Amino acid sequence: MNNTILDAIEQTGRQARQASRLMMRASSAQKAHALNAMADALTSQRAALKAANLLDVQAAQNRSLEAALLDRLTLSDRSIDLMIEGLRQIAAMPDPVGELTATKIRPNGMQVAQMRVPLGVIGIIYESRPNVTIDAAALCLKSGNAAILRGGSEALHSNLALGKIVRHGLQIAGLPELAVQVIDTPDRAAVGALITMTDYVDVIIPRGGKSLIKRLAEEARVPMIKHLDGNCHVYVDEFADLKKASDIAFNAKTYRYGVCGAMETLLVHQAVATTLLPELARRFITHGVELRGCARTQALVTQALAATDEDWATEYLGPILAIRIVDSIAQAIEHIERWGSGHTESIVTTNISRAQQFQREVDSSSVYVNLPTCFADGFEYGLGAEIGISTNRLHARGPVGLEGLTTLKWVLHGDGQTRG
Amino acid sequence: MNNTILDAIEQTGRQARQASRLMMRASSAQKAHALNAMADALTSQRAALKAANLLDVQAAQNRSLEAALLDRLTLSDRSIDLMIEGLRQIAAMPDPVGELTATKIRPNGMQVAQMRVPLGVIGIIYESRPNVTIDAAALCLKSGNAAILRGGSEALHSNLALGKIVRHGLQIAGLPELAVQVIDTPDRAAVGALITMTDYVDVIIPRGGKSLIKRLAEEARVPMIKHLDGNCHVYVDEFADLKKASDIAFNAKTYRYGVCGAMETLLVHQAVATTLLPELARRFITHGVELRGCARTQALVTQALAATDEDWATEYLGPILAIRIVDSIAQAIEHIERWGSGHTESIVTTNISRAQQFQREVDSSSVYVNLPTCFADGFEYGLGAEIGISTNRLHARGPVGLEGLTTLKWVLHGDGQTRG
Repeated sequence: MNNTILDAIEQTGRQARQASRLMMRASSAQKAHALNAMADALTSQRAALKAANLLDVQAAQNRSLEAALLDRLTLSDRSIDLMIEGLRQIAAMPDPVGELTATKIRPNGMQVAQMRVPLGVIGIIYESRPNVTIDAAALCLKSGNAAILRGGSEALHSNLALGKIVRHGLQIAGLPELAVQVIDTPDRAAVGALITMTDYVDVIIPRGGKSLIKRLAEEARVPMIKHLDGNCHVYVDEFADLKKASDIAFNAKTYRYGVCGAMETLLVHQAVATTLLPELARRFITHGVELRGCARTQALVTQALAATDEDWATEYLGPILAIRIVDSIAQAIEHIERWGSGHTESIVTTNISRAQQFQREVDSSSVYVNLPTCFADGFEYGLGAEIGISTNRLHARGPVGLEGLTTLKWVLHGDGQTRG
Repeated sequence: MNNTILDAIEQTGRQARQASRLMMRASSAQKAHALNAMADALTSQRAALKAANLLDVQAAQNRSLEAALLDRLTLSDRSIDLMIEGLRQIAAMPDPVGELTATKIRPNGMQVAQMRVPLGVIGIIYESRPNVTIDAAALCLKSGNAAILRGGSEALHSNLALGKIVRHGLQIAGLPELAVQVIDTPDRAAVGALITMTDYVDVIIPRGGKSLIKRLAEEARVPMIKHLDGNCHVYVDEFADLKKASDIAFNAKTYRYGVCGAMETLLVHQAVATTLLPELARRFITHGVELRGCARTQALVTQALAATDEDWATEYLGPILAIRIVDSIAQAIEHIERWGSGHTESIVTTNISRAQQFQREVDSSSVYVNLPTCFADGFEYGLGAEIGISTNRLHARGPVGLEGLTTLKWVLHGDGQTRG
């Protein structure tokens, strides 16, 4: 049984590698054509798609899956509309492939440049949201890659129906149908094979909870663009505009509790704590946010519970906020170094030296001045699309758009120069 | 015993991480100062260094190590001069850290940019050449990283002496001495610990033979910038200038047999084979290069042995060349796809469409037009320095200079914008 699955995944990998060779050569017009054809097919096959999705939803209901999961699993008219809109947007974006950069002429007259090219074969592993099938396929296709998609077993009917729509779009545009393959076995051995198949897969992008991603990272041999923790901090400096500081901190926590850019710990310079914290705390408490603070915070905010080391380390992803009063910007940076996860941090200050120091010294993938951390999002950064947010240091760091799905190759032009 | 080593390496890692925080903040002037101080120390401590090296060389002689290895191990006046020169060159190069790119203003007024920053902690694993200790330390330091160096056990005395010189330079410039650490145990468990210590090491760069690197890649948990095969091709198109084609092919093979950019297979379009091959073959044979060819090649070059599939797959790194006559550019590209290692390939042609097709469709880290493949070298590309050549697709591909030792972080400036 297991061997059959390994053979099937290896076959999928081989086909993806072949398709990727053709995808590298696909023109921008062909890729846009395929994406628009998928959008058309989603429109015309809406009923069939919803019928396939209903099979998954009913099976989930029979197994009494929790409401949040059911919600993520369901393809509503609204979520189908969003997929269609996403496809048309990606179709209209500039093609990253073929761009030449860093061109220079060497003393011997040869011209050296770097050309942006597709990564090759991308494996995407995700959980219950079937719309990822379309989003991921669209981004991989636009960037000239082949994709192998492995969604959650609970969404298999939906994903296979979406996969059919993707293949249809590829076919219409004269592109290889096998450029996007949906793995059709629910067996977990398929994932194990996918993440170790270094000959056929160039990068794995897992989308899902931290425990899934950690497990995958431990077993993977293929490089991974992964997202782990987002334990994000806002530091209010002594030179902050306190009205802005209050709005930034409030927005950073309450914009959406569940996003990875949500602020989890607020650091406040001691010089402004007395002025800032009591009123800001009332604002949070009125909004239903539970506060946990250091001893000095508790002296100013009586409703705050005592924060422990565990609080500094926790990504709550919920209506809880840790607050610490610090002596200096250096102590704030130390706190972030010790407890942060290197995701997104922000300083609120009017002082340019403090801003520069913070941006230089804080070693996170995104470092802001006078902005709430919840801006951590590829669309907000102007990437036009986002495959995820990377907490890696290598290759792609922070929000990953189409560029993160490409690499650079060196292209040299000469006229018969030789090396002596 | 083993536990003692693991503890020691973990301690090394912790220290490197701490030092890397300080290195990130080091000014360009400090880094240049440290590099020049190392060059001075190499000059003034030449005698002591050679005495330390003699211990390694004598031990190697006692174990009757082969001559090539002894040669690599020996620190001659010439190799010390080269280290000094390398240090001064790297000191004078522009600092890659802090560069801002891709700056744009978003519709809400916030400014989004990417800042080039150090990777963090870099582990370098190398074999018998002690000069790598200086070269690698210099590149890591210049790019603001901390380094952990693990050289060959046969060069331990030399590497420790060089490590002392590096520490001296760091100290003179007010930089943390632990920013460059030389692992002083010859135990192999140290390497196993180094390549799996994901908390403390951000990237491993192995330098050495393919078997070492393959073994490390199988065990590593830390991402690796690695170099595997260089099975490089020159394709002479039907529209080639045959005088240039002959010179390019000859140089690509004979510049130096042992470099990874050396041509291993020559592909010749059938339309020009009769004119090109007999004379070019004589040139190779006179130079002592053994030829192995396809049947059509053998018909034109009687001295050529029959090439087998193994020849197409082999990186000879020696005076042997495989030759195949192909029907078309498509067949040349297919051959490279099937047998190549994705390192460096070149087309010789005067036809611009053929050149474009080759550069677009050949999926190698370097693709040339009218140049010998032996140009695959960071200095030739104008990188100013080279830590190695990467056969990875992610992060750094092809020759890796200082930029490959850095990463980009997002820096955003706002004025209190919030997300609604």
